[in-house]
Amino acid sequence: MGKPRKKIVTIGGGTGSSVVLSGLKEYPVQISAVVSMMDSGGSTGRLVRDLKVHPMGDVRQALLALSKADPGKKDFFCFRFSKGELLGHNAGNIFLAAFEKIDNNFEQAIETIKDFLEVKGDVIPVTLQKTDLIAYLKNGKKLVKEEFLELLSQKKSSLKKLGLTKKSKANPKAIKAIKEAGTIIICPGNPCRSVLPNFLVAGISQAVKKSKAKVIFVANLMNKKGQTDKMTLSQVISFYEKYTGRDIVDVVVYNTDKFKKDFLKKYRLKDESLLKIDQKNLFRASYKTVGASLLTEKISKQDKADVFLKRTAIRHDPKKLAKIIMEIVNNSK
Amino acid sequence: MGKPRKKIVTIGGGTGSSVVLSGLKEYPVQISAVVSMMDSGGSTGRLVRDLKVHPMGDVRQALLALSKADPGKKDFFCFRFSKGELLGHNAGNIFLAAFEKIDNNFEQAIETIKDFLEVKGDVIPVTLQKTDLIAYLKNGKKLVKEEFLELLSQKKSSLKKLGLTKKSKANPKAIKAIKEAGTIIICPGNPCRSVLPNFLVAGISQAVKKSKAKVIFVANLMNKKGQTDKMTLSQVISFYEKYTGRDIVDVVVYNTDKFKKDFLKKYRLKDESLLKIDQKNLFRASYKTVGASLLTEKISKQDKADVFLKRTAIRHDPKKLAKIIMEIVNNSK
Repeated sequence: MGKPRKKIVTIGGGTGSSVVLSGLKEYPVQISAVVSMMDSGGSTGRLVRDLKVHPMGDVRQALLALSKADPGKKDFFCFRFSKGELLGHNAGNIFLAAFEKIDNNFEQAIETIKDFLEVKGDVIPVTLQKTDLIAYLKNGKKLVKEEFLELLSQKKSSLKKLGLTKKSKANPKAIKAIKEAGTIIICPGNPCRSVLPNFLVAGISQAVKKSKAKVIFVANLMNKKGQTDKMTLSQVISFYEKYTGRDIVDVVVYNTDKFKKDFLKKYRLKDESLLKIDQKNLFRASYKTVGASLLTEKISKQDKADVFLKRTAIRHDPKKLAKIIMEIVNNSK
Repeated sequence: MGKPRKKIVTIGGGTGSSVVLSGLKEYPVQISAVVSMMDSGGSTGRLVRDLKVHPMGDVRQALLALSKADPGKKDFFCFRFSKGELLGHNAGNIFLAAFEKIDNNFEQAIETIKDFLEVKGDVIPVTLQKTDLIAYLKNGKKLVKEEFLELLSQKKSSLKKLGLTKKSKANPKAIKAIKEAGTIIICPGNPCRSVLPNFLVAGISQAVKKSKAKVIFVANLMNKKGQTDKMTLSQVISFYEKYTGRDIVDVVVYNTDKFKKDFLKKYRLKDESLLKIDQKNLFRASYKTVGASLLTEKISKQDKADVFLKRTAIRHDPKKLAKIIMEIVNNSK
């Protein structure tokens, strides 16, 4: 592990970003994780409403993914109370909320946790202004707040356009990191909840477009019902481009492993279906494509226990994914 | 600050012990704080009931008092949520509860926090067995659980005898620390809630009696209604001896500063009255007495804000008290 040779910015939130970050932290790179700040559900949402703090859920996950601390400290940051009045609350969220309240400074709270968790790299909230997601549906109705997007999968109508309840300006630190980056990674994850919200914040897509960085798009393994359902890979990229801006992606990374049918059945992926790779369209695209074995079927104890987060049970393997990303980073454009 | 020359054990709980510990930690001594484990009220009680964890409130306070960490970390351990569903909860208590649940090991959780808070010395729960306090009143009635002792001050009847709902055995680490101690300090604090509960645990008073340590009793500044009301200092010591065993105290430390009347009025000490020093009886006692200026009138911001803990507003000064204690420690018996 030498001196950081490469400045990498990840854009995302939630579990998908964590997979990218936890793999990359093992390499001699300088990581800035730009994370979405529109979480209004679950433990985070309860703390945000009660205490008027910033939504800390995605920040917490990114800090954890970049942590070099021993497992005990990390366990705390994953720990979810399963009983009583704290039921469903994440201990790390409470930790962040308390530290924010003490100094009335969310970014200072992040610094304190960075120290505690021995975090490699920076975790940057995409905005520090309060805003919520709004989903305009094809039937003319709309769903407000991030957690209501879950309803998308139950609606007959699907998404027309994603927006924000209030315009919000990008965190200057996010703009600076994007400007200075050699590589920008658009992370896998729930498109409308975790990844695209970053690009709704004023200044982000412009900064990515202006930057000279190589932009890597890591495709999801599955499609999300109500969002990208039945789309092929090239269609998914077109869907993202409505928010990220056109032709910003340089390289698309996708999985080539086959799934076991039993496995798919076992996890009853009601809201998800496999992403199809449409080679014939990809050949004509402006971006390069890199297919590789990226699958893990190892499910952590934490994930199994975590009934409060309906997380995807099928995951990218952090090591495999980071290895492919680093090969792309190290190759000239 | 050389090598620890002296092994000191404090016995107590709550704010009174914290004052002793925070003063002593500045001296080159090896401190073991034995703390009561019968807290069933407030934030601690809610977590104990919900999560079946050990009552952590007194442990948390002792860890904090012995902490050498920067104020930011300590602020977190004092932080109390003032809104929403976490109203009244202490962030440090939640931290300890989560760590206990992760490994199902309270003592391991204490070690983790010791590391986080850079704690000087050991904090030892007096027992690891679940038990509650029971107060037998002179009118034949009884009050169960620590928080109901608060009712003592409202009752016409007063305390006849303090006991436990279930016999509990001392933590072997507490016995070991007492055995090896050169000095044992019986801390100031609420007698029936914080100090005497330690001596109800099987093995503690016997260990103190057997030990060759110098036993220092630090008298409270005030009497507690329903417990020690209207007692003089010599009467208070007799009251304690019912639980600690007779003639175990070697030196009694008491305050000689006068209180300002305005100050007393301002803090409306409904449940408390000044402790009277009855010199004529003290001269005949088997213990030495040391009177000294011990008062502080500085009230911390935290204490003022802490509406959930009805803490005494008049305090021993940690520095003055530790100085007197160290003079006694360093003098031969």
